[in-house]
Amino acid sequence: MESTALRLGTAGEKLLFTEARTVKRFSPTPVGDDRLAGIWDLARWPPTSSNIQPLRVLFVRTAEGFGRLLPHLPERNREQARTAPVTAVLALDRDYHEPAAPHLNADEVHRLDLGRFSAALQAGYFILAVRAAGLHAGPMGGFDHDGVDREFFPDGRCTALLLVNIGHPAAENPWRERQPRLPVDRVLRWA
Amino acid sequence: MESTALRLGTAGEKLLFTEARTVKRFSPTPVGDDRLAGIWDLARWPPTSSNIQPLRVLFVRTAEGFGRLLPHLPERNREQARTAPVTAVLALDRDYHEPAAPHLNADEVHRLDLGRFSAALQAGYFILAVRAAGLHAGPMGGFDHDGVDREFFPDGRCTALLLVNIGHPAAENPWRERQPRLPVDRVLRWA
Repeated sequence: MESTALRLGTAGEKLLFTEARTVKRFSPTPVGDDRLAGIWDLARWPPTSSNIQPLRVLFVRTAEGFGRLLPHLPERNREQARTAPVTAVLALDRDYHEPAAPHLNADEVHRLDLGRFSAALQAGYFILAVRAAGLHAGPMGGFDHDGVDREFFPDGRCTALLLVNIGHPAAENPWRERQPRLPVDRVLRWA
Repeated sequence: MESTALRLGTAGEKLLFTEARTVKRFSPTPVGDDRLAGIWDLARWPPTSSNIQPLRVLFVRTAEGFGRLLPHLPERNREQARTAPVTAVLALDRDYHEPAAPHLNADEVHRLDLGRFSAALQAGYFILAVRAAGLHAGPMGGFDHDGVDREFFPDGRCTALLLVNIGHPAAENPWRERQPRLPVDRVLRWA
């Protein structure tokens, strides 16, 4: 680990955590496929339960792709996605365990609980990896999940969890005023 | 955003994503409460669904605290936690919506689905924030969830999701050989 920094430092903390903002309006600056693949080169490494890897990522970035995606978004989120050069559909592969972990076959409820939890962990890593790659993220949970699944995952194996708009912030009004976080003493406890 | 870096850079990428490892054996070096609070100063900022904040964090770092926690771990994980100066219990507050979002009262199943997903996102942010703070994380999903809940959350409001050992890696054999990740073309799709 000699070549690794000892801690992130203020500039990195601001970029990923403390000053990063959820973008609602993007600039038209395009984002190349190589940069999108670079997000996954980061996001795939942090840990999950028993190294299961249930998350799948569909990058929508062509006019045809957006033509298939946008009808399944409510008006407000459609406006946000329309400004973004890329929208990633983060999805759970229900059969993530094949072929590596056949012992998960027996109990589907347990398998999906485990898969959904680790997929959400991976979604968290993905959002921070977008920021680490010098891009901005605009996650959106509000969309017609069944509609997106039918359109993009017709074999029924994957189910969409979250949309993440990706790009650069618009020059004007890229985000809303920051919402408050809970007081620390409502979150942290000590024993 | 002038004071913020444009992208994370190699040292930060290694620290958080590409070279960080899940620690199984920790050194006895203590970790102060101020550093633990510093983890949350980072982890609380990235986004969740509608800014809900369902995650609660219990830092176990006293002999008494470990005496209450360790009986609820299977032997293998007990050995790991025993070497760590701190184990964080990450838990879901089932009533996270009070008092800010009373409209979530009506549908408990929906509220818990939403809460569990955002709590797992927050757990992902937490693990990367541990690393950003210059510490190492060892997440463990294997423990007696009901036992931990009864011991630490007797009012039934919180339910433990994940344990995260926190500290510095042991000088010898701190982690196992890295497990493989899925080939990129099994994860990424394009439209």
